[in-house]
Amino acid sequence: MIDTDAFLAEAGALLGPRGLTRDDDLMRPWLTDWRGRFVGAAIAMASPASTREAAELVRLCARHGVPIVPQGGNSGMSGGATPDDSGTALLLSTRRLDTIRSLDASARQVVCEAGVILQTLHERADDNGLRFPLTLGGKGSATIGGLISTNAGGTQVLRHGSMRAQVLGIEAVLADGSIYAALDALRKDNRGFDLKQLLIGSEGTLGVVTAATLKLVPAIADRRVVWAGTRTLEAARDLLVLCEEIAGDALEGFEVLDQQTLDDVIDHLPGARPPLSGCHGWHALIELVADRGAAAELPSRTEALLGQAMARGLVEDATIAASETQAEAFWLLRDSISPAARARGPAVQHDISVAAERMPAFVAEAVPLMERTWPGTRAMAFGHLGDGNVHFHVIAPPGVDARRWLETDGKRISAQVYEFVTAWGGSISAEHGIGQLKRDEFARLGDPVAITMLQSVKRALDPRGILNPGKLVPLAPPEPRP
Amino acid sequence: MIDTDAFLAEAGALLGPRGLTRDDDLMRPWLTDWRGRFVGAAIAMASPASTREAAELVRLCARHGVPIVPQGGNSGMSGGATPDDSGTALLLSTRRLDTIRSLDASARQVVCEAGVILQTLHERADDNGLRFPLTLGGKGSATIGGLISTNAGGTQVLRHGSMRAQVLGIEAVLADGSIYAALDALRKDNRGFDLKQLLIGSEGTLGVVTAATLKLVPAIADRRVVWAGTRTLEAARDLLVLCEEIAGDALEGFEVLDQQTLDDVIDHLPGARPPLSGCHGWHALIELVADRGAAAELPSRTEALLGQAMARGLVEDATIAASETQAEAFWLLRDSISPAARARGPAVQHDISVAAERMPAFVAEAVPLMERTWPGTRAMAFGHLGDGNVHFHVIAPPGVDARRWLETDGKRISAQVYEFVTAWGGSISAEHGIGQLKRDEFARLGDPVAITMLQSVKRALDPRGILNPGKLVPLAPPEPRP
Repeated sequence: MIDTDAFLAEAGALLGPRGLTRDDDLMRPWLTDWRGRFVGAAIAMASPASTREAAELVRLCARHGVPIVPQGGNSGMSGGATPDDSGTALLLSTRRLDTIRSLDASARQVVCEAGVILQTLHERADDNGLRFPLTLGGKGSATIGGLISTNAGGTQVLRHGSMRAQVLGIEAVLADGSIYAALDALRKDNRGFDLKQLLIGSEGTLGVVTAATLKLVPAIADRRVVWAGTRTLEAARDLLVLCEEIAGDALEGFEVLDQQTLDDVIDHLPGARPPLSGCHGWHALIELVADRGAAAELPSRTEALLGQAMARGLVEDATIAASETQAEAFWLLRDSISPAARARGPAVQHDISVAAERMPAFVAEAVPLMERTWPGTRAMAFGHLGDGNVHFHVIAPPGVDARRWLETDGKRISAQVYEFVTAWGGSISAEHGIGQLKRDEFARLGDPVAITMLQSVKRALDPRGILNPGKLVPLAPPEPRP
Repeated sequence: MIDTDAFLAEAGALLGPRGLTRDDDLMRPWLTDWRGRFVGAAIAMASPASTREAAELVRLCARHGVPIVPQGGNSGMSGGATPDDSGTALLLSTRRLDTIRSLDASARQVVCEAGVILQTLHERADDNGLRFPLTLGGKGSATIGGLISTNAGGTQVLRHGSMRAQVLGIEAVLADGSIYAALDALRKDNRGFDLKQLLIGSEGTLGVVTAATLKLVPAIADRRVVWAGTRTLEAARDLLVLCEEIAGDALEGFEVLDQQTLDDVIDHLPGARPPLSGCHGWHALIELVADRGAAAELPSRTEALLGQAMARGLVEDATIAASETQAEAFWLLRDSISPAARARGPAVQHDISVAAERMPAFVAEAVPLMERTWPGTRAMAFGHLGDGNVHFHVIAPPGVDARRWLETDGKRISAQVYEFVTAWGGSISAEHGIGQLKRDEFARLGDPVAITMLQSVKRALDPRGILNPGKLVPLAPPEPRP
């Protein structure tokens, strides 16, 4: 039994009035995930102001048996930062750990506390003629700690990798309140298996990330944004391979959508115009970038690329954005896919991946399968072809009751999508993590060997189970696969 | 008590005569590490021919309590693949797991079994117009499984990262004989913390890697090899930063050595000539490469780089290799540093790293410190400046008894080097792992929090301690740091 009063008294003494609140109005926004799918309750919300305070707090929680739910910007997609509704957990916000401790421009690295907001980091890097090569829609609220804990992705993974690839060092508070201090950015360090890697993507279940050393890259001096129409997704994939061959490291983004999806966006977005005059089976949005050293060669490289693509018959039509304004307009089309889809009615959305080279075949089977099995629905796939990661939406038939459809057919459709992607050797969570949203599906469809490993590691590093309980790690021992 | 006869009978029945031997002559070469520092004994040497056989074998070992020492090419530097001398362990050789299961040139990936030799992989990639961007001296014997288990480095880490960065998927046999099968190369997969990362660099203590999916990169179409003389190591570091700025991803190697070290190499190597006519404090060997898409721009980029380096006063003199023959001759100088040093007499060698930007300051303090503390010795640092990883040798005073010096002063010098690098926030093992060579120093100097985590994970995944016992993981609970 938790002695709540004693715990709160000690926590209050440790953190002071700015560091601990039980005020409902202050807590409420942080107890619902931003998509509104999960609503939780908490014993209190703690906002330690330093790593040391966070460590003392975790130690206190361990002593009292108070579960901890770490939270950054509360912009996760899987409910990983929302407590359950029992009201027994402490919400641990990293928002006051918001210092950029240092930035070394010549070494191209930055030491950030967990609560630093992504956009803030972008701006600071920019001020130093550098950039942090990971970005996503929620950059105005997403924090470094949350991005690390969920191994966030985005549209630049193709070239730069996901968050894991940006992390050079980590500082975290472990379940017993000890501090794992590994911020030294060693490019090579083979002292044992890499514990840093274990914390990345662990969604707060193994430790609370309090700071990290991150890699920066040179600022972009110039970019070329290309819109290309292809006959098939297969052709788009061949185009991607050609881009990698010819543009090499200049290739920074390669997003795809089909004609119907583009039409929906054009309908939805006031004043939007299609980049190409004709219709095509698929559209690819390609971004090539160059830093100062390579900028002079970018235009000729882009021309060479498109010339070859035309010569090989990979594209039916293509255009290069003539200005930054037009480049932004191209990207706005891509970024409006989700809002446009939402405006068409209720849909179930799936963030899935398969091996990149199998993606065209996967989409070619999955889309008709869903539309055939669930008459009246429309299935659409769009997104990061180069990563083998598409956002796969199934839109409800017109006129259904949204809430009811989502609870019934919607759930069954999602289960089927996850089974299908698993059968293809893919992942039911490419970017967004497991959290509480997908924990049961992960338990059902995950490899029992991997789940047993996961559970063993979790028990080893958090034997009392106080770190983000109920998230990510399936609770029951896995069923052996048939 | 192990029932050796019963175990051997069952293992023999499982593996057949080609898969199991107790013949001393056959086993002997594999029971001594290649540097001759460790000599072990084994109950037998097993060479399973498939992952399934390996899994059955591990299950058998688990049942009988027989410890397992996995071994690839036996070219490790830290004795990680050599059993202790008790003769109770089974040597598990991966040599028969030598199939390249598939190579997909357009997806640029290859599925290799653990026993595939690095050079074989290089050749196969080359046949497909691609390359595997990790190489090292032992490439004729080192295996993929060993490279993964030690997270091997080499001279291309600067651009391509160490082995960890090449691994897209893994298959491994765990301590209970279950198979962790995660060969699907998903560029994005956020189903829980990444267990693959845990196996990489774990030196066979958490599982036996049986296969992996690896990344390939485009073949090199052209390269420029530059030899530059700088006044100081600091200037060499500034030159490196400039190279990164101007050459970007074309920069593939940046190795440094001082004048004295170069002189030793020239003396040692018949017919060798210094690349530059004058003397310089430090020398940098720089390799710029380009694939087909970027080859046209390489000469102008290299010229631009050297022009700027001269203009900024970073180099005193520099030359571009005029031919492939000369380029090879430059690299031969670099590769002859270790043999030349060995020829000068006994030395203790240290594979250490600090944050790359601190390396010049570190060397500037460490070299005189050692030479002052140990009169008559010569300390030298050379290697991978861009990775913050230098090979730091301390050569014995002339005329000492080699064996005795290594056992006495040599050991004390190493202890001091490791203390010094730890105080600088660096690593006592940049590339070569811990194995049995550095386990006690790791226990003494490692962060107690990290060691406790390591021990917890080891116990969780190998509760009976049968996987490579005595390697890497310190045995006793760590002493808290003062």
